[in-house]
Amino acid sequence: MKFDKVTIIGLGLIGGSLARALKGSGSVEEVCGVDADRSALKFAVSEGVVHTASAEIEEAVRGAEVVVVATHVGIITEVAKSAAEAVGNGAVITDVGSVKGWIVVEMERSLPEGVSFVGAHPIAGTERSGVRHSDGELFNGKLLIVTPTASTDPGAVEKVSGLWRLAGAEVVPMEPQVHDRIFGFVSHLPHVVAYALINAVAAQDDPPGMMGYSGGGLRDYTRIAESSPEMWRDIVLMNRDNVLSAIKEFKAALEKIERMVESGDSQGLEEEFQKSASAKREGG
Amino acid sequence: MKFDKVTIIGLGLIGGSLARALKGSGSVEEVCGVDADRSALKFAVSEGVVHTASAEIEEAVRGAEVVVVATHVGIITEVAKSAAEAVGNGAVITDVGSVKGWIVVEMERSLPEGVSFVGAHPIAGTERSGVRHSDGELFNGKLLIVTPTASTDPGAVEKVSGLWRLAGAEVVPMEPQVHDRIFGFVSHLPHVVAYALINAVAAQDDPPGMMGYSGGGLRDYTRIAESSPEMWRDIVLMNRDNVLSAIKEFKAALEKIERMVESGDSQGLEEEFQKSASAKREGG
Repeated sequence: MKFDKVTIIGLGLIGGSLARALKGSGSVEEVCGVDADRSALKFAVSEGVVHTASAEIEEAVRGAEVVVVATHVGIITEVAKSAAEAVGNGAVITDVGSVKGWIVVEMERSLPEGVSFVGAHPIAGTERSGVRHSDGELFNGKLLIVTPTASTDPGAVEKVSGLWRLAGAEVVPMEPQVHDRIFGFVSHLPHVVAYALINAVAAQDDPPGMMGYSGGGLRDYTRIAESSPEMWRDIVLMNRDNVLSAIKEFKAALEKIERMVESGDSQGLEEEFQKSASAKREGG
Repeated sequence: MKFDKVTIIGLGLIGGSLARALKGSGSVEEVCGVDADRSALKFAVSEGVVHTASAEIEEAVRGAEVVVVATHVGIITEVAKSAAEAVGNGAVITDVGSVKGWIVVEMERSLPEGVSFVGAHPIAGTERSGVRHSDGELFNGKLLIVTPTASTDPGAVEKVSGLWRLAGAEVVPMEPQVHDRIFGFVSHLPHVVAYALINAVAAQDDPPGMMGYSGGGLRDYTRIAESSPEMWRDIVLMNRDNVLSAIKEFKAALEKIERMVESGDSQGLEEEFQKSASAKREGG
């Protein structure tokens, strides 16, 4: 699939990496980057992350076939609406947000005539952020979940899927609500739990300095809890019901183990722990 | 520090790696390995992990200055007692168990005259196990916690500390009860939580196959939950009170976040998540 112009709003790790991949593919005539941060824009131009750059959405989306909104999740709909107002007839707006239901509903009820919106979520990333860490190989072999609804134009879905395939991603379609339930469990819950665990350990002062002993299992949690507090605040609030239901299920699983520790149920504990090791191997 | 003979009982990842490090240091005349598994013994001899090997504890500990019990934590005291009965006068027995209080108390009330016990816990390891994955550099630059009590012979503590320094470890003395409280929080709790989280996700069948989407945060948990179910059953039961108290503190931290999600407390959530990111940075 070939594109004349693709505009990416938000040159962070995700937006910058997508820009590099699309530019590198040779199948996009013009990759245009937008960012409110002038130093990110300057870097993107001087390092050849994009072909062209602009600080103005209205200017940048002119003539774009696809506009990818890769800003922080909390401002995606606001930015996408501005882009939709400014973009030409027949253009497709898409995003990269970790929550889909809320964004898709909000976009569908506000789209101007002749503009399509297709929700998307690349399952890739690192703890690092910013265009300086962007990497054209970030999405290679990774999943890209695309969340069309009954009212989404199939041609628009094809364009967004084709774009991500240029970056090496494997495209998987999913209903927005199914996406949010799954990622409430496999991504949002693990983050909430990591934050709670680090907070619980850090709050201990008898003895002080426990956080210094991270070699025995804590380090994997600290890595998760390094993610942006603002972003995760927005994600859990935008996916509130699923996150609450995931927390509830997790607490039940934890309390089952807690009761076994209390009663010294050695066999039960081994079975619980074994179940987990098997689930891991099946999930891959 | 130089040693004539050191016997290591249990040639798994930890025992095998210590054997390689001590042999490699050139400061131990004879590193003798013991394992009930003949294929592990054969591997250890043919690959030069140890100087000598035996399947019999009684034979292997003869003439040893230090005996390191590196078996599964659940049988450490049983094995250490056999070694203590067979070893010569003036010898030191030590271990590598993740729980110290219970082991130290149990050993101190059963030691024969003329034999010392010093509890120890190397803070190193990988998800892999077995002598085939052993690595002479595993302890290099890592912590070794040594847990003497008021009745431990200072000379014996020096010997055990010196041995681990030959393997490159940094030796930190700590009371057994302090060790167990700290590691209840920084190691045993993270494992229990990872097991509970993986079990909660794996139990979902709407939609099925959630474990397949591990890229968004779940992967770090599956890594932790890969550890041996038998070993973790023993550890949490041997450190029961500390593990229960850590679970309680963790649940309180989680429920604080849960209430904020419920009430849509955006500022509170950002603060909770920020606290965690800061604690991480301080802990290093």
